[in-house]
Amino acid sequence: MRVTVHRKAHFNAAHRLYNSAWDDEKNFKTFGKCSYPNYHGHNYEMIVSVTGEIDPVTGFVINLDVLKRIIYEEIEVYFDHKNLNLDLIEFKDKIPTAENIVVLIWNRIRYRLDDHIDLKITLYETPRNFVTYDGN
Amino acid sequence: MRVTVHRKAHFNAAHRLYNSAWDDEKNFKTFGKCSYPNYHGHNYEMIVSVTGEIDPVTGFVINLDVLKRIIYEEIEVYFDHKNLNLDLIEFKDKIPTAENIVVLIWNRIRYRLDDHIDLKITLYETPRNFVTYDGN
Amino acid sequence: MRVTVHRKAHFNAAHRLYNSAWDDEKNFKTFGKCSYPNYHGHNYEMIVSVTGEIDPVTGFVINLDVLKRIIYEEIEVYFDHKNLNLDLIEFKDKIPTAENIVVLIWNRIRYRLDDHIDLKITLYETPRNFVTYDGN
Amino acid sequence: MRVTVHRKAHFNAAHRLYNSAWDDEKNFKTFGKCSYPNYHGHNYEMIVSVTGEIDPVTGFVINLDVLKRIIYEEIEVYFDHKNLNLDLIEFKDKIPTAENIVVLIWNRIRYRLDDHIDLKITLYETPRNFVTYDGN
Amino acid sequence: MRVTVHRKAHFNAAHRLYNSAWDDEKNFKTFGKCSYPNYHGHNYEMIVSVTGEIDPVTGFVINLDVLKRIIYEEIEVYFDHKNLNLDLIEFKDKIPTAENIVVLIWNRIRYRLDDHIDLKITLYETPRNFVTYDGN
Amino acid sequence: MRVTVHRKAHFNAAHRLYNSAWDDEKNFKTFGKCSYPNYHGHNYEMIVSVTGEIDPVTGFVINLDVLKRIIYEEIEVYFDHKNLNLDLIEFKDKIPTAENIVVLIWNRIRYRLDDHIDLKITLYETPRNFVTYDGN
Repeated sequence: MRVTVHRKAHFNAAHRLYNSAWDDEKNFKTFGKCSYPNYHGHNYEMIVSVTGEIDPVTGFVINLDVLKRIIYEEIEVYFDHKNLNLDLIEFKDKIPTAENIVVLIWNRIRYRLDDHIDLKITLYETPRNFVTYDGN
Repeated sequence: MRVTVHRKAHFNAAHRLYNSAWDDEKNFKTFGKCSYPNYHGHNYEMIVSVTGEIDPVTGFVINLDVLKRIIYEEIEVYFDHKNLNLDLIEFKDKIPTAENIVVLIWNRIRYRLDDHIDLKITLYETPRNFVTYDGN
Repeated sequence: MRVTVHRKAHFNAAHRLYNSAWDDEKNFKTFGKCSYPNYHGHNYEMIVSVTGEIDPVTGFVINLDVLKRIIYEEIEVYFDHKNLNLDLIEFKDKIPTAENIVVLIWNRIRYRLDDHIDLKITLYETPRNFVTYDGN
Repeated sequence: MRVTVHRKAHFNAAHRLYNSAWDDEKNFKTFGKCSYPNYHGHNYEMIVSVTGEIDPVTGFVINLDVLKRIIYEEIEVYFDHKNLNLDLIEFKDKIPTAENIVVLIWNRIRYRLDDHIDLKITLYETPRNFVTYDGN
Repeated sequence: MRVTVHRKAHFNAAHRLYNSAWDDEKNFKTFGKCSYPNYHGHNYEMIVSVTGEIDPVTGFVINLDVLKRIIYEEIEVYFDHKNLNLDLIEFKDKIPTAENIVVLIWNRIRYRLDDHIDLKITLYETPRNFVTYDGN
Repeated sequence: MRVTVHRKAHFNAAHRLYNSAWDDEKNFKTFGKCSYPNYHGHNYEMIVSVTGEIDPVTGFVINLDVLKRIIYEEIEVYFDHKNLNLDLIEFKDKIPTAENIVVLIWNRIRYRLDDHIDLKITLYETPRNFVTYDGN
């Protein structure tokens, strides 16, 4: 009897899509306005989904206070009000697309959870564009 | 060619998270403000998702009027404007966490559906906390 | 040049609509399922709207951190995870309808704000039922 | 490392649920007000979900501009501001239920995507009724 | 002490924007795809906002059951699953734009309310286009 | 008979709240994480609300295509995917708070509208923080 518990969270950040191996023209052709030099930004919304057995003593798959603390320490402190290109070592040589960000978020939360818990992350870059990753 | 049909519904209820085998201090440490003695409450929103073949005569997996009647009879009559701890026999000795509620909802709807239909329930306790259960 | 700044907040509470001067039958006729004896509850969402001049030094009408602290101290501490009928002195002899709650919220925030600031409160009892009050 | 990219889109259309092999009474009994003769309509919202590997050069599973052009050409041009019963050849002898529409949308987008990309479509007929189809 | 009570409701309808005094070309130039001959449709969402004094006996400005019945009788029965051009006498010689519909809705509800109640209607044609009217 | 027509739009931008007359410590004390040096960003959502008489020939207060073109030319081209501090001359010596941005947006749209039209702008910096300005 495995249930999935979902928790929404959010952070605000600036970024820019730019491949430094290319000139500006090729970057604009591929990334459009997302390649503008002075950055733009988003209200990133995320859903953290953890799946596991219900503990019969508490009725919880995971205590939400524990999950909220993990999200705070691993995601909010690390991403909120940051410039993803300039402030995060992971995007020094990798483009901070939603796809690459969601994999990074998944990795940061995954190592904090017990092995018997499954994890899936949904990341909204805008209300109309979003991505999901579950480690497979 | 299996399609999933989703229907949203809702009910309002009071509850309290409290393990009667523990003293108040341990309850507060585990459940926080959710253990307050006089109950609090939520607008529970739910999504009922049924998966099956499209009937070529009607174009339906299930007639929505049938699904709405099942939701009304099994969920709204049973849960709406109730105190989950005091009014529902299932939570006499079980804590009404979102996890335990979603399993109860799944069971009440499951027995009303044909065997070839798959069922999944999503239950929102708040817009930021929600759970899903599909019987596995 | 007056601008309005809006901040969303929320609290979860239990309540019951019941006029103790009436018998149960008249209460049910007036309040329906909202009069059930064991309480039900809601995720109350609120919008606090303050109107004033922009401070040319900060670009703010009000510092959001100040507004968030007022909301925390006056509303969240006071209303969150409470039973409005049993835990709040104001509803000892007054029915906790959305109308009466929004006036109480307005009064609690109003006395914390400067006189030159206008205040309006919007309170959602459910996503489909909500009320507004601006002191007039 | 497969990531799913989701893109929301929408179109407005009129339709009517009516089986021409039945008389009006049987249609009304099955389809209710949806069988009214002069059509009604919906703001159809859809989520197009494509799953694939991240391209290490761009950081994209699929360039959103490419996906937006496919959605525009295959869905918006074809469905937007149309009468599904009268204007679309596919619904000459098939009832335009949400189930049948979502399969048609899936087929129109599927043939435009590379084989290694998986596709799932979610179609909202109203905010409370929606369907999903992934080709299985 | 006047409070505003808001109630959300909805109906689905087909319509077409077309001025019969003009040829098709001029209609298309003015109304675009909204002038297509076979109609399209919308999920119309509306907010009915009534303002008045709080009744000290009930704590209500208006009993929501009364307001819901007015909305059902005046709006849902009249507009839901209809073709606004063909089925409603008011749009025989008037174009069913959101502006004209909201005025009609206001008039139908206004005559059912006491004089000391103020009324405002908000009508969403789509989530991005909406109109408001308060009788002034 | 004046009706208000509302149109939603959006843009994504980076910004930073920083008063150059102050040192970093005072900036952090006033603006918190919003003062971080490398910028952060938001999905700004806006509602443009125009009020006027209904034209009896078209049934419109304003043709939405006209309004959408004004929003595109004055707001989207100017603000979308920009760094508000670095790219916009208006914020060379003014802090790009939501309050200051909404006044700028109002001014840019106001001069494009006829005098008999009233204008109000609502600007969401996040789903929980937003501002409104109507020129008074």
